[in-house]
Order: sequence, then structure tokens, then C-alpha cells
Amino acid sequence: MIDYSRFLSRAARGMQGSAIRRMGVLSTDRRDIISFAPGYPAADTFPWEDFREIAAELLSGRDGSVLQYGPTRGFRGLVDAVVDIVGARAIRATVPDIVITSGSQQGLDLVARVLIDPGDVVLVELPTYTGAITAFRNCQATLVGVRQEADGIDLDHLDDVIARERGNGKRVPFLYVVPNFQNPTGLLIGLDKRQRLLEWAARRDVLIVEDDPYGDLYFEDSASPADTRPLKADDRDGRVVYLSTFSKTLAPGYRVAWLVAPAEIATRFELAKQAADLCTGALDQRIVHEAWRRGVLAAQVPRLRAHYRDKRDAMTRALERELHALATWPQPRGGFFLWVTLPDGIDADAMVPRALDGGVIYVAGSAFYVEDGQRNTIRLAFSAADPVHIDEGIRRLARVIRDEPA
Amino acid sequence: MIDYSRFLSRAARGMQGSAIRRMGVLSTDRRDIISFAPGYPAADTFPWEDFREIAAELLSGRDGSVLQYGPTRGFRGLVDAVVDIVGARAIRATVPDIVITSGSQQGLDLVARVLIDPGDVVLVELPTYTGAITAFRNCQATLVGVRQEADGIDLDHLDDVIARERGNGKRVPFLYVVPNFQNPTGLLIGLDKRQRLLEWAARRDVLIVEDDPYGDLYFEDSASPADTRPLKADDRDGRVVYLSTFSKTLAPGYRVAWLVAPAEIATRFELAKQAADLCTGALDQRIVHEAWRRGVLAAQVPRLRAHYRDKRDAMTRALERELHALATWPQPRGGFFLWVTLPDGIDADAMVPRALDGGVIYVAGSAFYVEDGQRNTIRLAFSAADPVHIDEGIRRLARVIRDEPA
Repeated sequence: MIDYSRFLSRAARGMQGSAIRRMGVLSTDRRDIISFAPGYPAADTFPWEDFREIAAELLSGRDGSVLQYGPTRGFRGLVDAVVDIVGARAIRATVPDIVITSGSQQGLDLVARVLIDPGDVVLVELPTYTGAITAFRNCQATLVGVRQEADGIDLDHLDDVIARERGNGKRVPFLYVVPNFQNPTGLLIGLDKRQRLLEWAARRDVLIVEDDPYGDLYFEDSASPADTRPLKADDRDGRVVYLSTFSKTLAPGYRVAWLVAPAEIATRFELAKQAADLCTGALDQRIVHEAWRRGVLAAQVPRLRAHYRDKRDAMTRALERELHALATWPQPRGGFFLWVTLPDGIDADAMVPRALDGGVIYVAGSAFYVEDGQRNTIRLAFSAADPVHIDEGIRRLARVIRDEPA
Repeated sequence: MIDYSRFLSRAARGMQGSAIRRMGVLSTDRRDIISFAPGYPAADTFPWEDFREIAAELLSGRDGSVLQYGPTRGFRGLVDAVVDIVGARAIRATVPDIVITSGSQQGLDLVARVLIDPGDVVLVELPTYTGAITAFRNCQATLVGVRQEADGIDLDHLDDVIARERGNGKRVPFLYVVPNFQNPTGLLIGLDKRQRLLEWAARRDVLIVEDDPYGDLYFEDSASPADTRPLKADDRDGRVVYLSTFSKTLAPGYRVAWLVAPAEIATRFELAKQAADLCTGALDQRIVHEAWRRGVLAAQVPRLRAHYRDKRDAMTRALERELHALATWPQPRGGFFLWVTLPDGIDADAMVPRALDGGVIYVAGSAFYVEDGQRNTIRLAFSAADPVHIDEGIRRLARVIRDEPA
């Protein structure tokens, strides 16, 4: 047999799989397992009837472009919709700033390819989203983590880190942040801190890549639209690249998301996307566009806020009952995730097989660290399971944790 | 304003747009223009009614996975379908060899990322498909062209080129070929030459990337399934990475294609895809899968062979009538494209604005060359326009050519 390793690129030799994806596969292999691993939206919330009606009309055959190749930037109606959608988040964007992407993962990949040279340092929150880690690493970036506080990224540490890295002669093109209900911690960056972050970026002459999949999904008991105001809304000198998506508010199976960037950078994203997949799926874009145009999206979002808040409540209630003495977690004010710190000495990676045996699965926190992380942390997604299963899943998890050697 | 150039990666600074995509935009901006530029399949051939029915059933809401995140390798039912589809092309593939991609463009991008290091030499036919050129160049490959003869790539020149490049110390991971109805020339590689190409690859220890979007679309008056037998069918030692797609046989708006590769390389493609877009659109994959399962695809392909043959006939008839003294072209035996050589001294790039004024558009041949090409060549796609417009378009084109200063 051929030894293929000599044909592989350096990038390919360094590629690693996502722990979340692996957990997703594990948990779908065994139906009896309650999964808190992948951050899947709840399929029973999808507006199926609207989608069915929209698809039937679009597929009438009257408009051939519904199934044809389309512009790399995206279907023009959808680009206009994005101008409107981000406008409601106080972002003033124009058409040349926008690129429709095949999911936000593609947005992260385009960011990586357009902004990262091999060996560059990219700054990330500690912990941070694994999909960003893999996208940036595939372009051979070195990721350097910045600590988080209760109100998000630690600005002093951030400034120390960039000074150190640049002092070591490293190019640092951008900081990657998820300011709203961060994946994995669920944290919000405080409003005052957002302003100071923008000032810091200007002072240090660095870009900010702001990933905002969850901003619309705040829980009304503890957060408001004002709390989720994007950095991009106050980006007066054009330093912020903003990503968001329809995956959490409509459905991820469509793979439709978007980038907002200074037009000059957006043009590069377009060129990179042209070579990456020519264009995002035409039918997907048209369905999403119609769902926006007909008000399906607008009706959906408040329902989802209530839906996911109920699930968060089910999870925190069960955690309080089962694990209040053994675990701590910041209360999520939106989004899909709950970040749990277990007793020192518990190794969440090593615990995975025992959790599977116990009928429950999570993502070990180490997956979200770019350096040696806290081995005693786990991410629980409360988005997919229903409240009854959430309750039972936490009961199972608590049993596993109590049985761990600590 | 910020000067963004210092934030861009070296790859991004070198990115160039596709001439085909530019022509596509130009020609959709002006409705009165007859376009032979982009190789769009004919939307009026799409099985709209079947798609409508399938979509309605899939979107019933009974199966949440239809709109959920899915496995990076692709929906399992579709992977199994691909085993069957390539089996009918004499390729013995198993599930671990296959990755579903978001269009073949993504397949080319994954190939580039997994196999190319900056500075590597990739061998391509001269001329070759622009989408491959941009994907490989975005990974900073140097592309080196190999001449074609009437029965495809010139094996002597090929061997000279690889000897020269390796002699210069270059790493040459693969040769990229489109053996069936090549884009842009429409040429077929002869059967005997296919065997010799495989022997050459083994002797020179190099991989072959075989791109086969058009193989099913042979024209029965002059080609048969035997003529389109993929290299991959005879790839006994695992040197061929094979790409194909549903874009030309079902519809490109779905963005569903696939890669078949030695399992070890397929695993790398999966990792690269995970970071590139997580997974291909779930609804798209399910619709394509159902179209295969219900026999829609099998019924469609023979219809398309007749449809595109009629259009080729319309175009060659018009060319004979209008340009027989001024132009030459190899007769396409399948596919979407006709490659025309105009009189020496005609500059097809410079002629574009005059063609637009004359109400017709094509892609200038230079777009398909990786070095200075023949300025007097053009690619005409006969796939999209109907026969009446094809006839009128060639009439317009002939008028423009006759008026050119030569």
C-alpha cells in the first residue's frame, strides 16, 4: 500500500477532529443516551409548516434561479434582508459589507484564510468555541488564550498577551470573541467592557472578529436587547468583522449565515468563498429569505427565547438539586450552554466512558482550551433535549460524578 | 480610513476573481444579452414536480434531522447512494472512501488544502477549469500546464514537465485532469491513454485528481459509457482522487457533490471539511438522496443527454453556417462546452466589450490558461440557452468577429 503521508500538506498533517463532532457521533450511535453534547437547536421548534409551504411555492418551476448557481456574495434579496436584520441590532451595514456564508463555520474559515498567515498569533477567549479553534489552526495560526471574568474577557490580561506576543515578533491580526452567551461558558461581555475593547483594538491596531450566533436568544428574565448590543454597532473605524447566522433561529440544516465586514475585507471574503464553494445553496437561501420576508423569523425568535429559557430553568433546577454541593456554574442569561466546574481532581475527559455507561454525554471542557485547560470543566447544551430528559440526564450525570474518584 | 492590506494573509493578497463568475454577473445585468458564458445547466430541465413532492414530504416535521446539523462525511443514505452511483461507473468504493461535499468546488478546495503546500507545483491540462485554478492558487500552488492533443493530455509533454519541475527541486503532489468532456475544451481522454496515464502516475509516484462532472452526459451519436470510463475504475494502487457532482444531472442550487479517495486521504478531507463548513446542507442532501432513491435521477440522465446533444447540434450548425471559414472547434461528444479557435490576431479578451454591445457573451480562453495562452480562443457553453437563442447568439457572435480588426 501507498504511504500517503508524504502527499499531505503541512496543514493537513496538523488537522485535528472536533471533540463536539465526535461526541455527536457517539451519542447518535446509542439512542438511549441523553445528550448534552452538541449545541443542536430543538428540531421540534422549527416552523415546519411554513417551510413546507415556502418550499412548495419556490419549487413551482416558475423561477429557475431557485435551483441554479447564484452570486458568490449571496442571493440579493437575502443580502438586503441581512442589512435589515443587523440594522435591528444597531449595526449600519450596506450591501458591499455583506457576504452570505454556508454556515458560520464557513465564515470562520474565510476569516482564517483571508487574515491568517502560518505562524500568526490569534487571540481567543479562554475557553473558546472549538469550531473557531479548528478553522484558525487549519491555517496554521498559533492560538493564544486570554482569561475571562464574570463580565467576559479580562482586558488587562488581553493587553499583556498582545504586548508579549508582538514583543516576540509575532504578527497578531485579530482577537476572536463571542460576546453574547459565549460558547462554551454562556457569558456576556459587559457593555462598558465592550466599549473598552473597541478602544483597545484601536490603540493596539488589531482587528476584532465578533461571532454572534446567540445574540437574539436572550432570556427576558435576566437580559435585554441592550445587553447584547454588538461591538460592531459601535465600530466607528472599521475594525470589527461580524458573524451571525440563521442556524439557531430558523434551522441549521439550511447552512445559511453571514459576515459583515469593512467592504475591502468583504471583497476578499468573496474571493475566498468563490474558490471554496462558489456560492451558498440557492434553495436554502431562498427559503430563509422567504421566512424572513413573511415574518416567520420575527415570530419565531420570541418563541425560542421562551423555549430555551424553560430548558435552562429545567437544567439549573436539576443541577441545584443534584449537584449544588459539587459543582458551580454561571447562570446563562441566553444561548444554549451551561458551563460547569466540577470538583478539583475530576478529569472530565477520563469520565466520558463512564458517563456514556451511565446514559449521558457532555463535552469535556478541555476541547475549548487552546492550552492545557481545567480538566474539571464540562459544557452542557440545554438546547436539544426536552425538560423531562434534561432532568433525567442531570440525575444520571450527578450519579456518575458522585462515583468518580476525586 | 484603515489600510487593511497589512491585515491580509499572503494567500488573500494573491486571490483573484473568476472570469466566468464576472461574465455571469455581466450577462445577468443585461437581459437582452445571449449568454454562452457560465456553464449553467438548463433550469427548464430540472424535475421540479418531483423536487416539490420530495421537499413537501421531507418537510413534514416527522424527521427532525432533515433540518439539523449532520455528519461531516454526509447523510449516510446519500453516501450509500454514491457507492451505488460510482459503482455503475465501474468504481469500487466503500463508505470510508467517500465524502459528500458542498459542490465540487468544495471538493477542489479540500484537495488543495489537504495536498498542497505553498510553493508546490500542481500539473494541469492546458487549458483547464478555472475553478480548479483558483482553488489551487488560493493554497499558493504554482500551476504548470501540459499540452493537450485530440485525445487529451500529451503524455510526453507531461513526463517532460514533471521531470523538469522535480529536477528544479519542486514538490509535485498531483496532476489535475478532467477526462470526460473537459471544461473548457470538451475533449475526451482516449481509453488507451487513460491506462498509460495511470502507469505514468505509478512510475512517477504522483497522485491524480480526476474531476468528472460531465461523464454521464455523453452524446449517444458519438460516445458511449465505455468512452467515459473513469481513471478511478482502474486505480489499482490507490493513486486517484475522484470528484463528481449532482449539479449537472439534478441541479446546482443544491450544492451536493462528492469525493472518492483512498480512505486515509478521505479522512483528511473530512477533517478539512469539518473546519470549512461542518457539513453540507441537510435538506439539500435529503432531496438529492430521495431523487436518487425514487429513480428521478435515473430517469433524468438520458433525457439530459438528448437535451444537451440537441443544443450542441444547434450550436455547431450555427457555427458551420456563420463561422466555418473563420473558426475551428473540436466537436463535443458530451458535456456543456465548445472550444473555438478564432483567427490569429483576434484578442478574445479585448473583444468582450464589443461582444456585449453586439448582444452576446462568452468566456475568453485566457481564463483557462495558467500561463500566457492563446488570445484567440473562446469557450462557448451551449447548456443554458435554448436552440433558437443559440442560433441567434452565434449569428451575433459571428458579426462581432467579422468586424474585429485582425
